[in-house]
Amino acid sequence: MEQAISAETLDREQLHELAQQLRVDSVRAAAAANSGHPTSSMSAAELTAVLYSRYLRYDFAAPDNPGNDHVVFSKGHASPLLYALFKAVGAIDDEELLSFRKFGSRMEGHPTPLLPWVDVATGSLGQGLPIAVGIALAGQKLERDDFRVWTLCGDSELAEGSMWEAFEHAGYIGLGNLIAIVDVNRLGQRGPTMHEWNTGPLAERARGCGWDVQEIDGHDVEAVDAAYARALQSDRPAAIFARTKKGRGVAAVEDRENAHGKPLTDPQEAIEELGGERSLRIEVQAPPAAQPGELPQEPVERPSYELGEKVATRGAYGDALAWLGSVDERVVALDGEVGNSTYAERFLAKHPDRFFEMYIAEQQMVAAAVGLQVRGWKPFASTFGAFLSRAYDFIRMAAISDADLKLCGSHVGVSIGEDGPSQMALEDIASLRAVHGSVVLYPCDGNQTVALLDAMREHRGISYLRTTRGATPTLYEPGESFEIGGSRTVRASDDDAVTLIGAGITLHECLKAADELTAKGIAARVIDLYSVKPVDAETLLKAAAETKAMVTVEDHWPEGGIGETVAGVLAGSDTSTPLTRLAVTGKPSSGPPAELLAVAGIDAAGIVAAVEQTPLD
Amino acid sequence: MEQAISAETLDREQLHELAQQLRVDSVRAAAAANSGHPTSSMSAAELTAVLYSRYLRYDFAAPDNPGNDHVVFSKGHASPLLYALFKAVGAIDDEELLSFRKFGSRMEGHPTPLLPWVDVATGSLGQGLPIAVGIALAGQKLERDDFRVWTLCGDSELAEGSMWEAFEHAGYIGLGNLIAIVDVNRLGQRGPTMHEWNTGPLAERARGCGWDVQEIDGHDVEAVDAAYARALQSDRPAAIFARTKKGRGVAAVEDRENAHGKPLTDPQEAIEELGGERSLRIEVQAPPAAQPGELPQEPVERPSYELGEKVATRGAYGDALAWLGSVDERVVALDGEVGNSTYAERFLAKHPDRFFEMYIAEQQMVAAAVGLQVRGWKPFASTFGAFLSRAYDFIRMAAISDADLKLCGSHVGVSIGEDGPSQMALEDIASLRAVHGSVVLYPCDGNQTVALLDAMREHRGISYLRTTRGATPTLYEPGESFEIGGSRTVRASDDDAVTLIGAGITLHECLKAADELTAKGIAARVIDLYSVKPVDAETLLKAAAETKAMVTVEDHWPEGGIGETVAGVLAGSDTSTPLTRLAVTGKPSSGPPAELLAVAGIDAAGIVAAVEQTPLD
Repeated sequence: MEQAISAETLDREQLHELAQQLRVDSVRAAAAANSGHPTSSMSAAELTAVLYSRYLRYDFAAPDNPGNDHVVFSKGHASPLLYALFKAVGAIDDEELLSFRKFGSRMEGHPTPLLPWVDVATGSLGQGLPIAVGIALAGQKLERDDFRVWTLCGDSELAEGSMWEAFEHAGYIGLGNLIAIVDVNRLGQRGPTMHEWNTGPLAERARGCGWDVQEIDGHDVEAVDAAYARALQSDRPAAIFARTKKGRGVAAVEDRENAHGKPLTDPQEAIEELGGERSLRIEVQAPPAAQPGELPQEPVERPSYELGEKVATRGAYGDALAWLGSVDERVVALDGEVGNSTYAERFLAKHPDRFFEMYIAEQQMVAAAVGLQVRGWKPFASTFGAFLSRAYDFIRMAAISDADLKLCGSHVGVSIGEDGPSQMALEDIASLRAVHGSVVLYPCDGNQTVALLDAMREHRGISYLRTTRGATPTLYEPGESFEIGGSRTVRASDDDAVTLIGAGITLHECLKAADELTAKGIAARVIDLYSVKPVDAETLLKAAAETKAMVTVEDHWPEGGIGETVAGVLAGSDTSTPLTRLAVTGKPSSGPPAELLAVAGIDAAGIVAAVEQTPLD
Repeated sequence: MEQAISAETLDREQLHELAQQLRVDSVRAAAAANSGHPTSSMSAAELTAVLYSRYLRYDFAAPDNPGNDHVVFSKGHASPLLYALFKAVGAIDDEELLSFRKFGSRMEGHPTPLLPWVDVATGSLGQGLPIAVGIALAGQKLERDDFRVWTLCGDSELAEGSMWEAFEHAGYIGLGNLIAIVDVNRLGQRGPTMHEWNTGPLAERARGCGWDVQEIDGHDVEAVDAAYARALQSDRPAAIFARTKKGRGVAAVEDRENAHGKPLTDPQEAIEELGGERSLRIEVQAPPAAQPGELPQEPVERPSYELGEKVATRGAYGDALAWLGSVDERVVALDGEVGNSTYAERFLAKHPDRFFEMYIAEQQMVAAAVGLQVRGWKPFASTFGAFLSRAYDFIRMAAISDADLKLCGSHVGVSIGEDGPSQMALEDIASLRAVHGSVVLYPCDGNQTVALLDAMREHRGISYLRTTRGATPTLYEPGESFEIGGSRTVRASDDDAVTLIGAGITLHECLKAADELTAKGIAARVIDLYSVKPVDAETLLKAAAETKAMVTVEDHWPEGGIGETVAGVLAGSDTSTPLTRLAVTGKPSSGPPAELLAVAGIDAAGIVAAVEQTPLD
């Protein structure tokens, strides 16, 4: 008969029994999979047994209940423990537990939101805590709900700077709803961690970040219980550094090296040593009713720009974002301390309650955005396109989390000019296209920027908007709509000899080049490929059929950008229309934007020269 | 007449005059460029005046002198100050100073190694200190020289986690040759920093990392002098948190917001307020003679594998790296706490003095590698390919630094199996190709891995090797050489109807598919495209001309990988041979490797099916 363990269970022995059950089930799952991380699970058995039975408030039958606490396994490789907990709370059965790591099972090697009780994918260490900061920010700053965000961290992952971005930001904001439980089991994958069981230096750093800090024995259920009780009393974020033993409870692996990430050699003996299988059931406390708050709203009109008006698309981003904040109260904005360059500050001016200044910490910025969307918010996060590269692993993982994440990178390409190559995004199209399910947009004028940002708001998934530093003339009517996956043929005639394909700043160069070519008797079609991913293959193939040569022009490296996108479309067809790809090939320097475009051969003159070298008969 | 300031200059007023000169020249450079960051330069004038005149040991006539100290401007936007210093030491003249940010000038917007006294490009904040850790590691662990590494950091960039990876690592190792000077000027780009002038929390964290920490008034030259003197006495890394005022000395901008990153409105008035132009000359101390140390060497034979022998290319990486450590005493290795998975541990076993365990801190790992190559070492840095995405901004900047950096990413693609998508590198080819001047290699067997790693050792620049988790059969003879930019046509006949192009794990699937297709009466050519960048266009175009269809197969997303590389080559020609690109399109899950390859349609059966759907007449 199943024995229930609940918040009233204060008995040390019963909690120990529960912890042993979690160990046994972790060992069993890894044995069934013949892989996985049982020893990393065993160290945190008491930490989670006490959490789930006595502190967590969560309705496993209603994972979308806004009153639910959140639990993030920042040490995602302890998935056997998480799944053992899901079994103990009755969310899954033993059969599903033992489907661990099998094809088609929700019990993946590292947790993903395929499971309704998992908010985000973890498994790239150092990401869970920064994401938890975002969830906690939603609770404290937007929703004023009193859910709590419990995060189980590994000690090895404290070497990741992103963890300290999280400590810093949470301490600065004073996120009293955030609890970091650090499972200090002394051993990483290949050997001891830097500090092993010496939690003092880590505690000192966390205190320096403004956290309430405790150092405890993580196998002492009473100490764990007392630590959680104190953490809930704190109005600051609480860190609990819990000294534990990896593989605890099984002599063959307890505190031993070379026992990471593999099943136990003799699982049956280990299970016996742990006291055998048990069937304790955790009765998790129900969450309190959520109290939806209201945020002040300020109406903002849709921005529009007159034809010919010169405006920087980064400015239009700021204008449009401020507008979208009025259209959709779930829209929030984050920026990496460059809001006066990305123009995210225009959102801040209208909707200060929904703006998050993340300082120069791009990893934390993207992680916070991922955390905010866990709570149903629609985050737009911006910085220089070049510096989004800092958060690339977080964007990669956000795709595995099926996150709804809107990114804006400003100051792209050599056209930024004098600041030089360190500030120029020249790899952002390539890297953002290579994110699962992503959308990559690159507007050429203000009105298009407004329309595309609205499309991003409506699109669920990871989308990226690339904006330009300098002002460009308005080509499209105010209010014109642009679809994700579309394009615009901005100039065409029946006798077009060549097709010029640009986006953003290079579209304007294509138009100038088309004028010059016309003067030379060469009719040129011009396509605005503002949606780089997904791409409008139909329009490209039509142009390939109707013209004798094609030229792509991009303020980006040749690899993975607009040129290769088009090449991929053409190569898949039986067209023989040749494609010339103009892009930035040499390492750029500082200089005036026009000069840098010219040196890269991606200005109108460069395009004309490329067309003139192309046989058009 | 020029007045000289040297280590003997103890006069407070003279040092103040020098600081004012640096301010004036910063203002003048920004005025000449009509852009730049004079106020961020002015705050650190005393800090650098004292450093260059009284502490730095450097021969500006011989920047390659191994005895020279290193100075890294982690706050790279303070380039006007750096160039003002170069003028004050006599390395450049006033005319060159005033060419700041002009096209063709070495005085770039942010410092780059175009200047012989600049080791690395900075300007992406949070990178200078981690790179300085690498330079200091070379001094302390490899060279046992007593040069010092002085790093000027901004306070805003302390929000970057990478800075704390550096604090952590330097403190853990005890890098007594490293000094971090933090210019705490209170203001970031768009407003106040988190801590403004409250240096206490930052100091506490640095102490928690094991540093010798001082908090001073950064405009008090005597305090600065005393801080440097004490820093040199410490056998631990020394951090000096210096409270300063941004724009110090000019009332219009001093400690004012909205004065970041722009020239002063009235530079002439500012220069007068600062006391006018001066022509003080710093006499920098000469460096001590370097004492080249010797590291113990252990001979290791070139690894070789028998034809047909199954070996994981990640294992061959470890074997080859251990061998290269014997071939070339400048080879060093770094790993991100996964050396028993990447097999970098095989280098550690043979050359412990040249191995650097960087723990789970990929940004610090790549930065340390960049720092090590500043001192002429040849660093090979490894982790899972997926986690190299964590250091993408560092790799991007390393290209701007013209760094000699060799990277290895293991566990690529869905073929890793059960660990699931968080551990699978599926964007690494795209992102690493989109790095300026990079080389991207993807071997399919052990012997090829050995040869390519040797090619990487000889190649100067950024190169990346992609390795596979599982064992694959040896196809190539031991000792066979493979060139960067080459390919191998491993199967060909005169009547080939289709060309199959793979690399790494998919090459083996291509060979199996070719067998099956032959049995069905379709002759298939198979190309091993082991050098994805640069790519062997000639062989590809020959195959396009000689066969009726082409198929690329890659364990990677479709974007920016092998398929688009080939598409780019074909689209540039007038061939009409259609290309089918097989790649991972759905989000993968956990499961057995073979099953995941099949689900992605990139196994032999998927290739055969794709060919059968292709018209070959």
